[in-house]
Amino acid sequence: MAFCYINGSFELKTNAVVSIEDRGFNFSDGVYEVMAFADQKILNFKKHVRRLDNSLLELRIPQPFVNVKSLELIITKLIKLNNLNDGFIYLQITRGNAKRNHLFPNKINPNIVIFTFNLNIDKKIKSNGVKVGLTEDLRWSRCDIKSISLLPNVLEKQKAYENGYYEYWQIRNSIVTEGSTSNAFIVNKNNQIITHPINNFILGGVTRDSVIEIAKKEKIEVIEQGFSPDEIDNCKEAFLTSTTVGVLPVVKIENRKVNSGMPGRITKNLIKKYNNYLLDQINE
Amino acid sequence: MAFCYINGSFELKTNAVVSIEDRGFNFSDGVYEVMAFADQKILNFKKHVRRLDNSLLELRIPQPFVNVKSLELIITKLIKLNNLNDGFIYLQITRGNAKRNHLFPNKINPNIVIFTFNLNIDKKIKSNGVKVGLTEDLRWSRCDIKSISLLPNVLEKQKAYENGYYEYWQIRNSIVTEGSTSNAFIVNKNNQIITHPINNFILGGVTRDSVIEIAKKEKIEVIEQGFSPDEIDNCKEAFLTSTTVGVLPVVKIENRKVNSGMPGRITKNLIKKYNNYLLDQINE
Repeated sequence: MAFCYINGSFELKTNAVVSIEDRGFNFSDGVYEVMAFADQKILNFKKHVRRLDNSLLELRIPQPFVNVKSLELIITKLIKLNNLNDGFIYLQITRGNAKRNHLFPNKINPNIVIFTFNLNIDKKIKSNGVKVGLTEDLRWSRCDIKSISLLPNVLEKQKAYENGYYEYWQIRNSIVTEGSTSNAFIVNKNNQIITHPINNFILGGVTRDSVIEIAKKEKIEVIEQGFSPDEIDNCKEAFLTSTTVGVLPVVKIENRKVNSGMPGRITKNLIKKYNNYLLDQINE
Repeated sequence: MAFCYINGSFELKTNAVVSIEDRGFNFSDGVYEVMAFADQKILNFKKHVRRLDNSLLELRIPQPFVNVKSLELIITKLIKLNNLNDGFIYLQITRGNAKRNHLFPNKINPNIVIFTFNLNIDKKIKSNGVKVGLTEDLRWSRCDIKSISLLPNVLEKQKAYENGYYEYWQIRNSIVTEGSTSNAFIVNKNNQIITHPINNFILGGVTRDSVIEIAKKEKIEVIEQGFSPDEIDNCKEAFLTSTTVGVLPVVKIENRKVNSGMPGRITKNLIKKYNNYLLDQINE
């Protein structure tokens, strides 16, 4: 039986509930984070907290934790209660309970839910890479907020699954923004990494930022600029990043094989370096 | 103490809860309807049911009610339990509870929540009209689905309130789509009513459709075509429609007074005819 954290207490996850007047339930008026942990240590914790703070600020939901340390203590206690060493944390904060009305209610307390989960990611996809499709970006214009307003992402991910893709890379104004659950990267003929810049059309991923930092340390040029389907046709390598999969090679985009359908050299190097970067955090 | 309906039973609303793994709560993976009732009779019931069916179909959530009659019985029983004659019904259906994963889970039961509410709409705004602002349409490209993915609408409605507007009329590609909680109409110099056509950029409102039917019966020409801010500058009248307010005169758009700041003749006629149309349903 797994425990979760809800509004100040640890409860069995199966018993944990929220009011039908929670504004997350009625309006998707809330934010979330997914964090990985290894050896009971939360990875990239500060980066996740920074993004969470930003999402809360954008929605003007008051930060409900006394400080970063108290959030870390709560999560660490939850990991221990669930007897886990490695896995993932899901954290959701909604504006709170109120009589249904679009307008922000006055003085209500946010609802906080935290639970752990694991993913059985097929190791083959990490070594062999995945296929992605291309589709129109249906989402709203504030994708920079990590909100629970995720219906577009759900529909895209489901469509991808049914069409044999890991996911879709989304295109807005002829430019690839990102995947429905990850950030999108290509490597061009000049061994430059290209990925969409941080703005309101993408979610600034924690793994994205870490990988860019690592690439720069490795003296690989990173160009934060939108790329087009044409540039995909001429790319040497491709990969995607997310907290749950880290760096994942993309070996086919629609009908085009990338690097003869094999993970590329730069991608494999980044996977290795990213794993080391996480190991360094664990051993800190 | 108000009762609500939740997954087959009538419970006190204050006690009604959903799992923290409800997909509405995690992903805004659900749909809703708001219906008015008068003399315990649900207004425009068939139109609401048709739209609900359509929203469920788009998300591939199975229709959870045996038939339309059973839904009507549930709602009518709830209205009676709450000793109400007039008011509004909120109905929300989410995909159900599942381990958090974007992909549609197999064989789960939708969660159904129905509650009643009332609105104290200031009668003055009905007779004097309201002000609206203009803003960029931030929403996704499937506004035709009445989903609970409403964060953009919440943010716009809040911004409108803070700027002294009833709401914002949203503009996509230089064309007014609709308000964040209503449909938008203008009347031009030729006494033609203009409103955005039904497509993926607006929610086909039940009141919108009824008002168009009524206008046509009154021999008023209705042009379902997007209008621009320039056309607003030259309009004679303006109004908005929604289930909760019916037909509401718009007397100022940004800084421009419409019809010298008074509800227009055609608008007032439509309000009267719309009220009669509802009365006919009550007395049916």
